[in-house]
Amino acid sequence: MRVRVAGICHTDVEILRGYHNFHRTPGHEFVGEVERVAGASPVVKKRWVGKRVTGEINIPCRALGSSPICQFCRRGLTRHCQRRKVLGIVAADGSFAEYLTLPLESLHIVPDSIGDQTAVFVEPLAAACEILDQIEVKHFREAAVVGDGKLAQLIARVLRSALRRVVLYGKHSEKLALARRAKIETKRVRGDAGDLKKVKEAFRLVVEATGSPTGLALAQQMTEPRGTLVLKSTFHGAAPVETWPMVVKELTIIGSRCGPFDRAIRLLQSGKVDPLPLITRTYLLEEASEAMAFAQKPGTMKVLLRA
Amino acid sequence: MRVRVAGICHTDVEILRGYHNFHRTPGHEFVGEVERVAGASPVVKKRWVGKRVTGEINIPCRALGSSPICQFCRRGLTRHCQRRKVLGIVAADGSFAEYLTLPLESLHIVPDSIGDQTAVFVEPLAAACEILDQIEVKHFREAAVVGDGKLAQLIARVLRSALRRVVLYGKHSEKLALARRAKIETKRVRGDAGDLKKVKEAFRLVVEATGSPTGLALAQQMTEPRGTLVLKSTFHGAAPVETWPMVVKELTIIGSRCGPFDRAIRLLQSGKVDPLPLITRTYLLEEASEAMAFAQKPGTMKVLLRA
Repeated sequence: MRVRVAGICHTDVEILRGYHNFHRTPGHEFVGEVERVAGASPVVKKRWVGKRVTGEINIPCRALGSSPICQFCRRGLTRHCQRRKVLGIVAADGSFAEYLTLPLESLHIVPDSIGDQTAVFVEPLAAACEILDQIEVKHFREAAVVGDGKLAQLIARVLRSALRRVVLYGKHSEKLALARRAKIETKRVRGDAGDLKKVKEAFRLVVEATGSPTGLALAQQMTEPRGTLVLKSTFHGAAPVETWPMVVKELTIIGSRCGPFDRAIRLLQSGKVDPLPLITRTYLLEEASEAMAFAQKPGTMKVLLRA
Repeated sequence: MRVRVAGICHTDVEILRGYHNFHRTPGHEFVGEVERVAGASPVVKKRWVGKRVTGEINIPCRALGSSPICQFCRRGLTRHCQRRKVLGIVAADGSFAEYLTLPLESLHIVPDSIGDQTAVFVEPLAAACEILDQIEVKHFREAAVVGDGKLAQLIARVLRSALRRVVLYGKHSEKLALARRAKIETKRVRGDAGDLKKVKEAFRLVVEATGSPTGLALAQQMTEPRGTLVLKSTFHGAAPVETWPMVVKELTIIGSRCGPFDRAIRLLQSGKVDPLPLITRTYLLEEASEAMAFAQKPGTMKVLLRA
């Protein structure tokens, strides 16, 4: 594929800092155009060449032609393939490039009604949609999202598409203002221990998406006994966590990572979620290092690279 | 009730060390005989007086005659009552005494076929049975239990009553031998980081019951992607925990505390679980301080106090 637009994610910043020990081209959010299909029949080529697509980031052994395939691929859990490569993260060159290669089974055609700048959000939006596959959202009337960054904002929007009330707890007033424009209630928290104790509201459903251990402490505190706490943050290293509230309150904690692209595409098509206000700035691909630096500045939301 | 036999739990040891800031009589495992029912009708008195009973440890506001009752009592989740007292742990004198008082609704009659030394295990066994209420055990073929202490041993026995294969991971060879006699497979682990990495087996269902943060690290590592990890340990203070494996493997982590007494009583009646081999020694009530000291010695399992 020729990459049209790529998005910079916090994981890309972490990779730049040396996490994952990844030394290839980073980038895993993209929309591109298929230019060539290797070794395919004319029918298959006709189906794909020229199409605007986005792609799954987990490349399972099943798609790589391994034999035998691993037990997770056999069970259809290809996103948990034990031998998976991950686009721009593990053993596979990513989307901060002119061209990109993926197995056909990883691709999803982007409908014409979804522009490039919207389509580049399919991957992170799918990760947000994963929550709807993991919980029975109809059992809840409201939810809290802890965090006001890019992923937290998408999660709050996805939950808001299904629930009457979503409250976003965050530190940054401009980011909270962004959420309010999407009919999400917001609460400002400073984040220090004393301030966290002042948060008295409790929810049956809480999503932790701050990317920091402080977030987990607050999210635990805010989850009602027997409530559900969805974990989205993947900060590295061991964080000091009190786990006894999970036990005493009998919480259900659900780790949540990548999600269903088809659901994310349908959500964008429906117009129920509009990620465009989350774009802070778009750079040209050749300005990638400048863009990466800008993406790390406080207050910056999504930064894009375009061909 | 006149207390016949009481059991010493790790929580009692923690209370002795100053946790919970509890300054009344400790003890929450017991079997007793009802001597007096305050303010009850002759019919109610006749039903209870002279009966051998054990009792729920959470004393909910509903049972204390509060009005209005809290939302958790309204929802039937009395074990999560927001204003609960807890026998021998929070604001209520416990079972290391000659006499003990509880609301009638907390009591469960012990069938004649269950002896005192067995009946004193109803409370911790109920906590083990809680797992069967929280997961659909039929969805699993096997399980691992991390920890070889008293609670871990009961949990392994409860799971073994429902599953063909249960593997207990522990540090102490004599405790592992106890488990093997109950048809539980055992694996010895030393517990240091290097040794934990050698544990390669993975399970869809893992229960963490070590009472230590190292246990959580091993339990996480041993849980398959999309697997279920039940947390039973309530160690105090913040422990350094890596939470990213929960997210990357999309684990479901279920905090699990107190459980159903009726289920535990039925299990003891059926003979499927025999807790008697877990008793290390029985002391007289007046030897309680000696018993508490003994209960803290390495290798000691259940220590009982009798009238």
